[in-house]
Amino acid sequence: MAGQGVHNFSRFVHWGRNIVAVGRNYRDHCAELGNAVPTKPLLFMKPVSSYLEEGTGPILIPRGCHNFHHEIELGVVIGETCRDVCEGEVLGRVAGYALTLDMTARDFQEEAKKKGNPWALAKGFDTALPVSKFIPKEEVKDPSSLRIWCKVNGESRQDGTTSDMVFSIPHLISHISHTFTLHPGDLVLTGTPAGVGPVSPGDTLTAGLGDLLTMEFSVVQRE
Amino acid sequence: MAGQGVHNFSRFVHWGRNIVAVGRNYRDHCAELGNAVPTKPLLFMKPVSSYLEEGTGPILIPRGCHNFHHEIELGVVIGETCRDVCEGEVLGRVAGYALTLDMTARDFQEEAKKKGNPWALAKGFDTALPVSKFIPKEEVKDPSSLRIWCKVNGESRQDGTTSDMVFSIPHLISHISHTFTLHPGDLVLTGTPAGVGPVSPGDTLTAGLGDLLTMEFSVVQRE
Ligand SMILES: [Mg+2]
Ligand SMILES: [Mg+2]
Ligand SMILES: [Mg+2]
Repeated sequence: MAGQGVHNFSRFVHWGRNIVAVGRNYRDHCAELGNAVPTKPLLFMKPVSSYLEEGTGPILIPRGCHNFHHEIELGVVIGETCRDVCEGEVLGRVAGYALTLDMTARDFQEEAKKKGNPWALAKGFDTALPVSKFIPKEEVKDPSSLRIWCKVNGESRQDGTTSDMVFSIPHLISHISHTFTLHPGDLVLTGTPAGVGPVSPGDTLTAGLGDLLTMEFSVVQRE
Repeated sequence: MAGQGVHNFSRFVHWGRNIVAVGRNYRDHCAELGNAVPTKPLLFMKPVSSYLEEGTGPILIPRGCHNFHHEIELGVVIGETCRDVCEGEVLGRVAGYALTLDMTARDFQEEAKKKGNPWALAKGFDTALPVSKFIPKEEVKDPSSLRIWCKVNGESRQDGTTSDMVFSIPHLISHISHTFTLHPGDLVLTGTPAGVGPVSPGDTLTAGLGDLLTMEFSVVQRE
């Protein structure tokens, strides 16, 4: 893979160091939570300690959370350093993609929003980021036209397309790179379409990305 | 160093993967910003892309920021994995310490607090975390009784002691570990004493930790 040097991107979850996430990047999702469509990308962080690979265990509902939501999202894996990059340079610096669930303690987030507090507890807890295997960019014809979907116990909850993003992948990564330098192995989460909603202990989440992959995770309460 | 395995902690900045920071952990600093003393630690994230080692370049004021603040803080470098650890186990899992500046775009933070938005732009920009060399824990007699100070252009601005923390290091790390698993090389920032205030392009920040070290950084506007 040209330009990807010595990195083993199939294991980016194990050595990548940062995760930058974007909120409110699909109009229908902004509407369902009563948020305005942003005029610039809304950025937050998730820690790499929140990664959960398929097959390694269940999603853990954090203690004290009573409104635990799924958000299906396309993740973009950075292949080359991005600092002050223009939009036209972005896709050349991408290594590939992954399907992710930006699990969210919605009640913690509502409390943080009310108090003006950080979102870390709502978004960063252990297992807050279920993630698929890595998909090399060569396998993705057009990242701006991918179906992403999520089912709970087999029932459809989210079914969107990345063509509905408010800010495109090149726009997002260019924008982020003007504040946060992105390095190989870093992950950018690109927001979720409508249909977010609660999951409970015992539920099974199934999710898919175009005809590229599906993944499945169970949900339990953290003891 | 017992229990530290194969890790080279003197280079934790280069391989550590997460930074968990604590806000409002000194009473006099809560008061100066008009915040209540919290009843539990207030947690946020900084990305490892925000590290700035002494001698590698200046602190960059992010574009659009017009109120750029220094916050001198003791950093704790994790030596062994911490998940659901009790307070009594914490210090045995610490590898050492570092002196840090939790640089803050205060105007961005005020806007985020008003809007209920994440703090990422205020706290996570490139160079937001100037950091000293690593200090092995064997060189620190009592981390709960260390002077930390910060000067701007030679004039004292912050001069506190870690004995004034609201939540102790064992309490903080035990608390964090119940939500975010901490791994070797991760850094925990423990909050800042009173005296935070603005710095401008051309200023020089000098800071010190007990009789262990001093460090110096210059400040410029990001182009
Ligand atoms: Mg999301
Ligand atoms: Mg990180
Ligand atoms: Mg601080």
